[in-house]
Amino acid sequence: MKKDLHIVKIGGNIIDTPEALASFLVNFASIPGFKLLVHGGGKIATSMAADLGIKSQMIEGRRVTDTESLRIVTMVYAGWINKSIVASLQAHATNAIGLTGPDGGFVISHKRNPEPIDYGFVGDIESVNADGLKALIDAGFSPVFAPITADLQGQLLNTNADTMAQALAIALSKHFNITLTFCFEKQGVLMNPNDDNSVISHINARNFTELKADGIVSAGMIPKLENALKAISEGVQTVRLCHADFVSQPDKGTLIQA
Amino acid sequence: MKKDLHIVKIGGNIIDTPEALASFLVNFASIPGFKLLVHGGGKIATSMAADLGIKSQMIEGRRVTDTESLRIVTMVYAGWINKSIVASLQAHATNAIGLTGPDGGFVISHKRNPEPIDYGFVGDIESVNADGLKALIDAGFSPVFAPITADLQGQLLNTNADTMAQALAIALSKHFNITLTFCFEKQGVLMNPNDDNSVISHINARNFTELKADGIVSAGMIPKLENALKAISEGVQTVRLCHADFVSQPDKGTLIQA
Repeated sequence: MKKDLHIVKIGGNIIDTPEALASFLVNFASIPGFKLLVHGGGKIATSMAADLGIKSQMIEGRRVTDTESLRIVTMVYAGWINKSIVASLQAHATNAIGLTGPDGGFVISHKRNPEPIDYGFVGDIESVNADGLKALIDAGFSPVFAPITADLQGQLLNTNADTMAQALAIALSKHFNITLTFCFEKQGVLMNPNDDNSVISHINARNFTELKADGIVSAGMIPKLENALKAISEGVQTVRLCHADFVSQPDKGTLIQA
Repeated sequence: MKKDLHIVKIGGNIIDTPEALASFLVNFASIPGFKLLVHGGGKIATSMAADLGIKSQMIEGRRVTDTESLRIVTMVYAGWINKSIVASLQAHATNAIGLTGPDGGFVISHKRNPEPIDYGFVGDIESVNADGLKALIDAGFSPVFAPITADLQGQLLNTNADTMAQALAIALSKHFNITLTFCFEKQGVLMNPNDDNSVISHINARNFTELKADGIVSAGMIPKLENALKAISEGVQTVRLCHADFVSQPDKGTLIQA
């Protein structure tokens, strides 16, 4: 029988606030059983690039990763943020191990096609070594992934953290019952955007169609939910959208299931 | 019966030269069997600190690690250098996994006593989890350590890479026959400092005393050899000092043995 594995993704809104991150890590450490964390980058890379006089080029809201930017995101995400999180989780009795794609060959990507838009050193995930990761998780380690990958030629590549969390969840669903939690600033998907108490507790493919038709889910939320339903259709048991404060309370937030 | 484990330490003279590093990694990847790499930092951290307007404070030739310096060394050593090496080794069919002290709780340190000199966030190694590392090595991973550790409270600490390599070698000698190779710019310990062909092939406690008495080993080499003999007395089978070009040729350089 498959065991449960909690995969949690946190982004800039937590990483950029030391108190929020510290409190999140205490909660994450309290999740019983197997767990895996994927973290994004936050504003540190942007401000460091600015301090070094490197301009961040953006196309349609996405950062273009040139050679200098790649070096900075690798340093900040895989170095400072990743190791700070790992050291803190260890202090909270969670046997964290910090990883990027090339470590253990766990996640392999390829450089995104430069046509029609050249985003530079950005990696799209090609494969996840689920068997190798299972061995590590079974041995008692809690992987903490920074969103940096590499191709088979050893080229490091900047990778979207949401996509990485989703790819890990789908691949690991072969071995575990996966709950994939995306932490964000809201309590969940809201019926009424002005009422934090109006969390929609369950979404599936059927009521998602209705929620869309009724104009209840916002334009920004639609791709998130479509990705969540895709993950479900590919083997993930539950995708959850919730506030970081409730990461260790499994019934909080919006649960997307089959 | 114990299996062989090759532990190799490289420093700035290799890390700072992209061609030298690339060629070293090909040679390292060709070492058969179990292997582990420890890398130092090099000049990137110093030049990045300068670019950010952070002054490196030095006391008696040692860097003082303040909050900003700690962030930079963690980013550069554990982020950029470590992940570049790991991605490159993966491309050379070596299943590298990048680590720092807090990852997996493998190396625990404590902040150095601020008396008589306060070096700031510098960590002295307290313990190595040899059993956990053995499990990882037995599973087919080649650990690549950056010289960053943490204490039990989650404080990251800058750590000397030579000391880290030595501590790993001594702890892992419980499980493996260890050859600990320190790569440096010379062919080995030389009888005549002006003759690269005058490598002393074997040193042990007895002829070391003679070499010192005869004034053959230089002042700078004495502490290196004393540390090597200490490692031997604590269980390491061979310590080797050799040029990085010959890392995969076990008979090259100076071998320090019991």
